[in-house]
Amino acid sequence: MLTPRAEDFPRWYQDLIAKAKLADNGPVRGTMVIRPAGYAIWERMQAEMDARIKAAGAENAYFPLFIPESYLKREAEHVEGFSPELAVVTHGGGKQLAEPVVVRPTSETVIGEFMAKWVDSYRDLPLLLNQWANVVRWELRPRVFLRTSEFLWQEGHTAHATREDARAYARKILHEAYEDLMVNVLGIPVVVGLKTARERFAGATATYTCEGMMGDGKALQLGTSHELGQNFAKAFDISYSSAEGGREHAWTTSWGTSTRMLGGLIMAHGDDNGLRVPPRLAPIQAYVMVVKDGEGVGEAATKLCDALRDAGVRVALDDRTDTAFGRRAVDAELRGYPVRVEVGPRDLAAGNAVVVRRTDGSKAPTPVADVVGAVLAALDADQRALHDQALAFRQSRTTDVATLAEAIEAAATGWARVPWSAVGVAGEAEANGQGVTVRCLLRADGSVPDTEDEPDLVAILARAY
Amino acid sequence: MLTPRAEDFPRWYQDLIAKAKLADNGPVRGTMVIRPAGYAIWERMQAEMDARIKAAGAENAYFPLFIPESYLKREAEHVEGFSPELAVVTHGGGKQLAEPVVVRPTSETVIGEFMAKWVDSYRDLPLLLNQWANVVRWELRPRVFLRTSEFLWQEGHTAHATREDARAYARKILHEAYEDLMVNVLGIPVVVGLKTARERFAGATATYTCEGMMGDGKALQLGTSHELGQNFAKAFDISYSSAEGGREHAWTTSWGTSTRMLGGLIMAHGDDNGLRVPPRLAPIQAYVMVVKDGEGVGEAATKLCDALRDAGVRVALDDRTDTAFGRRAVDAELRGYPVRVEVGPRDLAAGNAVVVRRTDGSKAPTPVADVVGAVLAALDADQRALHDQALAFRQSRTTDVATLAEAIEAAATGWARVPWSAVGVAGEAEANGQGVTVRCLLRADGSVPDTEDEPDLVAILARAY
Repeated sequence: MLTPRAEDFPRWYQDLIAKAKLADNGPVRGTMVIRPAGYAIWERMQAEMDARIKAAGAENAYFPLFIPESYLKREAEHVEGFSPELAVVTHGGGKQLAEPVVVRPTSETVIGEFMAKWVDSYRDLPLLLNQWANVVRWELRPRVFLRTSEFLWQEGHTAHATREDARAYARKILHEAYEDLMVNVLGIPVVVGLKTARERFAGATATYTCEGMMGDGKALQLGTSHELGQNFAKAFDISYSSAEGGREHAWTTSWGTSTRMLGGLIMAHGDDNGLRVPPRLAPIQAYVMVVKDGEGVGEAATKLCDALRDAGVRVALDDRTDTAFGRRAVDAELRGYPVRVEVGPRDLAAGNAVVVRRTDGSKAPTPVADVVGAVLAALDADQRALHDQALAFRQSRTTDVATLAEAIEAAATGWARVPWSAVGVAGEAEANGQGVTVRCLLRADGSVPDTEDEPDLVAILARAY
Repeated sequence: MLTPRAEDFPRWYQDLIAKAKLADNGPVRGTMVIRPAGYAIWERMQAEMDARIKAAGAENAYFPLFIPESYLKREAEHVEGFSPELAVVTHGGGKQLAEPVVVRPTSETVIGEFMAKWVDSYRDLPLLLNQWANVVRWELRPRVFLRTSEFLWQEGHTAHATREDARAYARKILHEAYEDLMVNVLGIPVVVGLKTARERFAGATATYTCEGMMGDGKALQLGTSHELGQNFAKAFDISYSSAEGGREHAWTTSWGTSTRMLGGLIMAHGDDNGLRVPPRLAPIQAYVMVVKDGEGVGEAATKLCDALRDAGVRVALDDRTDTAFGRRAVDAELRGYPVRVEVGPRDLAAGNAVVVRRTDGSKAPTPVADVVGAVLAALDADQRALHDQALAFRQSRTTDVATLAEAIEAAATGWARVPWSAVGVAGEAEANGQGVTVRCLLRADGSVPDTEDEPDLVAILARAY
């Protein structure tokens, strides 16, 4: 079926996406089509993320896709970072445009323009906005979900009266929305840290990141939160009258997560049989299958669906007995439904259905009356199991080393933890030359530093997507 | 405050959008910024629409923003209809593109391409897809929500084995998703009918429409559903092996509703004090206001919020007593919250809070213990009241006439109902020349005809947005 992961991990990834019908390549280079099976998972990610963002006090809004080219030029680092990736519209309504417009690669500039209009007094702060949107960054080496010329994301943008308040909010989103979702819903034990100056978002004063380890030991950046200092506030004149009567520039933040999380999900949990979706995330948690037609089988399967639904389980019925059961079971494995409930004439005659867990492949004949309880227990246990497997894998592939040379060597198969003082700016450039990047910096106790100049920081070095 | 509607309706509309902070004009001509107060209403429309679309069996997916120019050219009427409105990307990643790409004005072409890949056998049909996305149609005379160069919408695209199945599905969405949402959630008593050939979607064989009457007597098209015949199936080779073994082209449909519904909502229900949002739609149904500080006032307001939330009411608390109450009350009127609950020291001393209904402006001092019941009753009654007011208005502004000349005259202040046989293709062109359009065709019993050639059809003529 799939190319085994050990044989060719990138090929396995592409195979899985195609065979589980998650996505296709679009006709314009680097674009993608997200198919219903993939989009349903994205919708669940969106719902969980949106609830966390709203709980953190931000409100959703929508800003235009098209940004005047001149806006991007106002923040020097920002335009330098994004210029090579821009798509430019030169014609509209049959005519050449007086000023070309860019398709947003991110929205700090256009949102900055409107924040400046909406913020007048300290009473208007903090201003906490989020939008769900598509963005475009022209990709030379596209890969579905991981690097695509167009992707879907949420981008949060906030303005605050003080640096401290901005920093606290960037970190609140980082931990309470991003880390919490990734660890507790996606089941990916991300490491949360500070990016080095070299890896910082273009225009930021600090970038925080959530890094996950993929099944081949590489790292994937799953979400970032930025302190933008007063860079954009000065470029767009986002200012306010303070309580004391003066006029001050605001401090802004931005933060984003995208459809890249779908790629992370596949590579963190997938196995040689296909996707494995953590139960809390799964659009379909229990997949009830009629093995073959027989006395009372269809009715029993339907009743089990109803009972599971009543118990709060997201359930789907597969009664397509004109397709071979084996083929349907393989397809269910591919799609990664957490639990299958197989209802067939022989087991049913003995009063049983078979509960099959995707996480460990176990198959348990279960009295029909006990199926709901067994499914609930399996969903609960397998949410933890997937996380714990991923954590154990990360730990087994992470090596503590003392020197840059050792770190680069360790990054061939996993992550290296090395004193930042043993790397430094020069060492980082050297590592980059060999395809290894500093994923993030941590304090010795695992907490997130404010700057890379703090003493005794640990750097995580790895190859990355 | 607002320009009165009777004085200058378009100005009133713009005033309301600005003062209720629903939206702003974007920096690129014709684009818009949807502010949190407007976006929250859109999110509620989306949730209600999405549930109906899923109940009709369609699945969400996502297709690329960028479409190769060559795709649009494959269906002759389609490209002719959309060419004048296209935005064209000529540069990506710093280089001129080999083939320019258009920013999707709608997605029949790119989705047709993928339907052709995914459909092979009759077992693959019907294929029922929907996407939530932004689209771009360059507008010469933009107006926020009504005509913008970029707007947000859902676009459904389906493929069927037979014309009958395609027609039935286009009509199912029309009635069960669109009409139901508009009438029962938005409270707009739309007329549902068939578009004439002249008003048909570019590439369709039949276009069905939901038309609402706005507060100035004009019509607004709030949603359309199209039979596309085999036009796109032939252009993109969407074909299937039939049960009999032959190879047949599929029959496709498409259907869409957009942020234009926000404009319709404003113009159907708004009054000189601002927006009026029907309770089933409203993001905030009950707005609990602390009139001014005083013994137990804050606690009483908080308790009322909790009790309302427990009763399933979407509630917000306004305890900003540093802002004058009158100003806050005017703002609440502007934003159209269905019910205000005013909690002040004087009323509270008498055991009361004041329940204020936005629909009729009534203010009822109500014992605190009875507030939840009073709010629930008001929400229920005012959902119907807004619909019934709009229906009575539509009826009062609709005139039955016998000739084209009378119809054009009646369209100065409202809608005309006239025999289609008294208009015809030539009469339609004449009306268009005077700014009047045929909004739709109906059978005598009000049902939706299959073609404009059926006998005894009634035409609705009006000026329109």
